[in-house]
Amino acid sequence: MLNYLNNRKTIRKYTKEDIDQNLLNEMITAACQASTTGNMQVYSIIETRDQKMKEKLAPCHFNQSMVTEAPVVLTFCADFNRFNKWCRQRRAEPGFDNFLSFMTAAIDAIIAAQTLCVAAEAKGLGICYLGTTTYMAEKIIEILELPESVVPVTTVTLGWPAEDPEQLDRLPLKAVMHREKYCNYSEQEIDMYYSEKEAREDSKQFIEENKKETLAQVFTDIRYRKEDNETFSKLLLKVLKTQGYM
Amino acid sequence: MLNYLNNRKTIRKYTKEDIDQNLLNEMITAACQASTTGNMQVYSIIETRDQKMKEKLAPCHFNQSMVTEAPVVLTFCADFNRFNKWCRQRRAEPGFDNFLSFMTAAIDAIIAAQTLCVAAEAKGLGICYLGTTTYMAEKIIEILELPESVVPVTTVTLGWPAEDPEQLDRLPLKAVMHREKYCNYSEQEIDMYYSEKEAREDSKQFIEENKKETLAQVFTDIRYRKEDNETFSKLLLKVLKTQGYM
Repeated sequence: MLNYLNNRKTIRKYTKEDIDQNLLNEMITAACQASTTGNMQVYSIIETRDQKMKEKLAPCHFNQSMVTEAPVVLTFCADFNRFNKWCRQRRAEPGFDNFLSFMTAAIDAIIAAQTLCVAAEAKGLGICYLGTTTYMAEKIIEILELPESVVPVTTVTLGWPAEDPEQLDRLPLKAVMHREKYCNYSEQEIDMYYSEKEAREDSKQFIEENKKETLAQVFTDIRYRKEDNETFSKLLLKVLKTQGYM
Repeated sequence: MLNYLNNRKTIRKYTKEDIDQNLLNEMITAACQASTTGNMQVYSIIETRDQKMKEKLAPCHFNQSMVTEAPVVLTFCADFNRFNKWCRQRRAEPGFDNFLSFMTAAIDAIIAAQTLCVAAEAKGLGICYLGTTTYMAEKIIEILELPESVVPVTTVTLGWPAEDPEQLDRLPLKAVMHREKYCNYSEQEIDMYYSEKEAREDSKQFIEENKKETLAQVFTDIRYRKEDNETFSKLLLKVLKTQGYM
């Protein structure tokens, strides 16, 4: 099992082969056995197979090709709507219209998403997470007709692999683990932990293509710019308000 | 593999047997191969083995016995601190002091946490998530000495199972899945989807023990009260501000 986890790669190109509905249901059933806060299951999964719906969603994900090319796109949502409805039908007044409850539901949704990804990869499927979901939550809510108390938190594209990319590097274990207390990083440690990543050919190419001096600058000046992060932060906080979580 | 996922149960009682450090490292290495936004790995894992540290953490988790009884407690944190340090050492100005970046890092942390849980269960270990982490983030930050840009988002206790509880029920697949668009629930659907849960003996016992009329009331009036959710929401938002994410 650890072999699966250790050897996985994100897959962005898929064959035209469909994903059988029974197989998908089987994987989602398994994902639903993962931990969930107080066994409330405060998440929902929206399955997109219709090509027109994929085309509507694509701009929300900056037109990354996986959205229209994957046979299945799954949007994982923090969802207290179903639970609230149940409470109200059972003479119970729910108090989940707040930020803590959003976080609870978001964590539930991500746990389900990642378990689904593990299940999918074990079945030979390829997956790709779309981080754009939190950026464009407002538009996704409109397209998928998400009611109050439902907020999309991540999207996964699923398909049979049509590529076999090299596995990406990861930081050394020591860089992400701390014993007993957080041991803040010295300059030397930062240099050491990032040296392997910086020495890679693809990193060097990345810097050159983007006409930057350092790999870090590609992240801060091009991929994840402060001004974009601030714009999308405002949008996301607005969404939490309109969906009833603030 | 789906068998593992389908048959899992949360384990709250552990034997006194320790977890070998090599085994733990092997599992965390596997967890680190899971997806992470832009390969930034904006999370950290704090490993607690020291009994005194467990006793300090225990009140943050409402003194649930797993914290002091599990051989290993792992606190998963959203962490842009390491990445920010790297950027600044490489003439790049990071722009991650905002809510969107917190969500990105929190999602990264949960994906790593859940992959670790899958790996641990495959190795025969039992796990339990502690949802209290977001409630008591402020105190956990103090105990684990988390610097700015580091926020604990979930905690997992790990140990060799000393119990074999019954598997908990889950809602039917249809209750959590939506095809193409969110199909909001009718009263009849809510009744149907929750009927199995409500018919269970343990649910009935739960209602009786708590002197309530319905199972939903146990959730709203005792387990997850509006006033507590609101108090902890304020605390968590304050933490995001002091840690530099607002």
